[in-house]
Amino acid sequence: MAMEHLARLKTRLGEIDDLQRAAQVLSWDQSTYMPARGGAGRARQLATLGSLAHRLLTEPEVARMLAEAEAEVEAEGLPSDHADVVLLRVARHDRERAVRVPRALMEEIALATALAYDTWVAARSSDDFAAFAPHLQKNIDLTLRKTEHLGYDRHPYDALLEDNEPGMTTERLRSLFDDLRAGVTPLLEAIVAHADQVDDSVLYREYDEQAQLRFSEDVVRRFGYDFSRGRLDLTVHPFATSFGHGDVRITTRVSPTFLQMALMGTMHEAGHGLYEQNFAPELARTPLAHGSSGGVHESQSRLWENVVGRRRDVWDYLFPLAQQAFPEQLGDAEAETLYRAFNKVTPSLIRVEADEVTYNLHTMLRFELENDLLEGRLAVADLPEAWNAAMQRHLGVTPSTNTEGVLQDVHWSIGYFAGFPSYTVGNVLSVQFYDAAARAIPSIPGDLAAGRFDTLLNWLRENVYRHGRTYQPDALAERVTGSPITAEPYLRYLREKYGALYGVEAASAPPLPRQGEGGEGRA
Amino acid sequence: MAMEHLARLKTRLGEIDDLQRAAQVLSWDQSTYMPARGGAGRARQLATLGSLAHRLLTEPEVARMLAEAEAEVEAEGLPSDHADVVLLRVARHDRERAVRVPRALMEEIALATALAYDTWVAARSSDDFAAFAPHLQKNIDLTLRKTEHLGYDRHPYDALLEDNEPGMTTERLRSLFDDLRAGVTPLLEAIVAHADQVDDSVLYREYDEQAQLRFSEDVVRRFGYDFSRGRLDLTVHPFATSFGHGDVRITTRVSPTFLQMALMGTMHEAGHGLYEQNFAPELARTPLAHGSSGGVHESQSRLWENVVGRRRDVWDYLFPLAQQAFPEQLGDAEAETLYRAFNKVTPSLIRVEADEVTYNLHTMLRFELENDLLEGRLAVADLPEAWNAAMQRHLGVTPSTNTEGVLQDVHWSIGYFAGFPSYTVGNVLSVQFYDAAARAIPSIPGDLAAGRFDTLLNWLRENVYRHGRTYQPDALAERVTGSPITAEPYLRYLREKYGALYGVEAASAPPLPRQGEGGEGRA
Repeated sequence: MAMEHLARLKTRLGEIDDLQRAAQVLSWDQSTYMPARGGAGRARQLATLGSLAHRLLTEPEVARMLAEAEAEVEAEGLPSDHADVVLLRVARHDRERAVRVPRALMEEIALATALAYDTWVAARSSDDFAAFAPHLQKNIDLTLRKTEHLGYDRHPYDALLEDNEPGMTTERLRSLFDDLRAGVTPLLEAIVAHADQVDDSVLYREYDEQAQLRFSEDVVRRFGYDFSRGRLDLTVHPFATSFGHGDVRITTRVSPTFLQMALMGTMHEAGHGLYEQNFAPELARTPLAHGSSGGVHESQSRLWENVVGRRRDVWDYLFPLAQQAFPEQLGDAEAETLYRAFNKVTPSLIRVEADEVTYNLHTMLRFELENDLLEGRLAVADLPEAWNAAMQRHLGVTPSTNTEGVLQDVHWSIGYFAGFPSYTVGNVLSVQFYDAAARAIPSIPGDLAAGRFDTLLNWLRENVYRHGRTYQPDALAERVTGSPITAEPYLRYLREKYGALYGVEAASAPPLPRQGEGGEGRA
Repeated sequence: MAMEHLARLKTRLGEIDDLQRAAQVLSWDQSTYMPARGGAGRARQLATLGSLAHRLLTEPEVARMLAEAEAEVEAEGLPSDHADVVLLRVARHDRERAVRVPRALMEEIALATALAYDTWVAARSSDDFAAFAPHLQKNIDLTLRKTEHLGYDRHPYDALLEDNEPGMTTERLRSLFDDLRAGVTPLLEAIVAHADQVDDSVLYREYDEQAQLRFSEDVVRRFGYDFSRGRLDLTVHPFATSFGHGDVRITTRVSPTFLQMALMGTMHEAGHGLYEQNFAPELARTPLAHGSSGGVHESQSRLWENVVGRRRDVWDYLFPLAQQAFPEQLGDAEAETLYRAFNKVTPSLIRVEADEVTYNLHTMLRFELENDLLEGRLAVADLPEAWNAAMQRHLGVTPSTNTEGVLQDVHWSIGYFAGFPSYTVGNVLSVQFYDAAARAIPSIPGDLAAGRFDTLLNWLRENVYRHGRTYQPDALAERVTGSPITAEPYLRYLREKYGALYGVEAASAPPLPRQGEGGEGRA
């Protein structure tokens, strides 16, 4: 017997997906081609699409559809990993979270964050934290109210993590960051003492912008990003976005005097794009056609940008292509020159410019501060000082302005807390997944060095990409790598790669000191 | 007292508008930047947006909202031309038409026309009318069923006209076409006898595509098209589209060996764009933020493309700019060279390439044939022969294939009947409006010749554009020009302009023979 209730539910979920993808098209356009004065109308259109999608998911009729479809599926005795059972589980999860937050609170948050964002833009450009402070306080208060509706056991942060990193907790993150810091700190100290080992001046020559875009496009096409189902456009803050299985787009930005920006940025977004392009087609128009989590998504951007794109022998393959693209600028260079330049490590003030070694220290700092803010251990007024002290403590640098300090990230201004850990989950998983691939298919390193990226891509497609949101991050990591999310492979990767690069062999970690919950772990 | 029912209705109408504009964004993207394989997902997203917008308009709740809002407005005693009264009248009109056609029939039409369109694309490329014929028959049958639901007094065509040209009837169109034919035929004969008067070879040199686009953009910016609220992109079949008051886009195409295509096409779409950019801002997100009709919309594309863009003294102003843009190609030319080339008259097979003199003969032919098809006087199997005979009769040319004959237009394949007359209403009104402007502000001709396009634009904004859909076409024409839609100004314009251009002065019209309804008027 056909499962007609399930079919009705799928129709509804398909409509919701259509609305969300339509909103993605509007957002992509807003960030690429929209004329200067299109913003006001666009904001209203996006609000309507979002509100209709929310309505289509939360109206009481859908609770009935779900229950009836669940009964049908149970009557059929389908196993718990059957696609329809997984779909119903995810749909119920999404709906239950969506109905928990009252509409009035959502609207209050939308209004407050719109105002806070505008204030932040101005405050950042005039280095005026005091102007932004009351809006940040308001965003914290509203976020705490939201977490009360969402519910949590120990930390309000846990309630927020559930959307970005389902299954992840504040406690586990604390332990993950402790491990990372314990491993990175001695390595970083050794690198800083040998900073003169790497010269990246080759990246700062004059590179024609069109040639950079063509080269970037060429490289990610070789990685396997499918331009018949995607495209590359320019924007201010690069991103990847999907309008469905046949249309997954990436964006980049380009500097005429810094080769790294467009190339590494394009590789990064292509990693996101490869994930989305390789969902199983049958997931299309369902809530499973998304990444497992923000962190798993980021693991793929970091895998293709860093683990592949900044790999020594991959540059033996890419370098002749780069030399063809930029014959004048790279005439006197070698593969090794570019490899070293792209992997220069420098403790710096700005997260988005951070290298593989220091990146997680930036996210750790934000993770600690936003927990302190949400749990009342830190007052908004004291935030800049706490930020600067933590920067000095972890990275040995101190911002001279709040613009290059606490005001640098957009996240808190738009009420987006608990988002930073996903970058670190992504860094860690990028190596965990790559190592698993190379264990499973020993030819992968050689294939990469020969420009045969499809061996790795096919393995990732089969093991990670095609499942979309079927598995939660830890379950996926267990299934694919034999272990849940863990820092050790990433730390080993850093030690080997940067030990060799900076001539600081075997900078091994001291025993890892574990810290108790809520302790002032950063002292 | 605040009119809360009216406010609720306006909220609903705003949401419907947001969905429709979102669909416009998706369609624009589909025609400009969408990757090759994005079509299937996009079609589903557009179907969902369309179906939700339809649902939001037709659900019974909206009938109550309307009635309650009307009661409020009546209680306030607002005059019949008050903005809220007009809005309610239009909203009721749109809703009543939307509920008349059963959902099942709409879906049947959507399915059949999608199939018919695909068949037409193939049939046109293989010159195979027989393959297309059954689909055309199906589209005619479904259209007739739709007209039964929509209702009409005399002709099924009238029911269809109501959407494109509200207030227009088959009878009036017949009379309008009779007048045009009577005026054009002797003029065209005289022109053909003097065809050697105009040499357009200057247009067929090699023109750099980027330079053409820059020049086209420059010209329409001078016309007053606002690029802070718009943009120009490349596409295959150019169009203009609006996502709201702050974002009205135009598209064009460009040939490296034909100067007319990009330039005149851009002027044409900019005319549509100027109309949409100059709706009163307070019409935004209401059903009044549209043109009065397809024909009135076309009148503005034709006014800026033809009446302004092909005007002799305007080329005194534009020519030095063109020469700067194309110094090599136009080094030996003069303003008069380009003016004459852009106004060459040739009876030809293809409507979209037709000049100002012959264009209405093409639309007349389609108007007659589609009426004959809908009223059963012509069988689909006999259509190609009837088409070719009519081409020979009216234009003196006969297609050698159906591809350059009856298969040339997309309209019937997508079930779009009664659309062609709008092109002619547009041609006729373009001159009617321009004449009214020049009567009201005698400096306009001199201003145009000096590149001061804002005098004309401001007059059009005040008298035509800002009203959006407030007035129906005839009411608007009466109000602005003192006369309903009529052929005489257009015929006088043609006689004067082309009489001078071809040296065939005073080719005056014979007395106009009127034909009875349903007569075989083309014999």
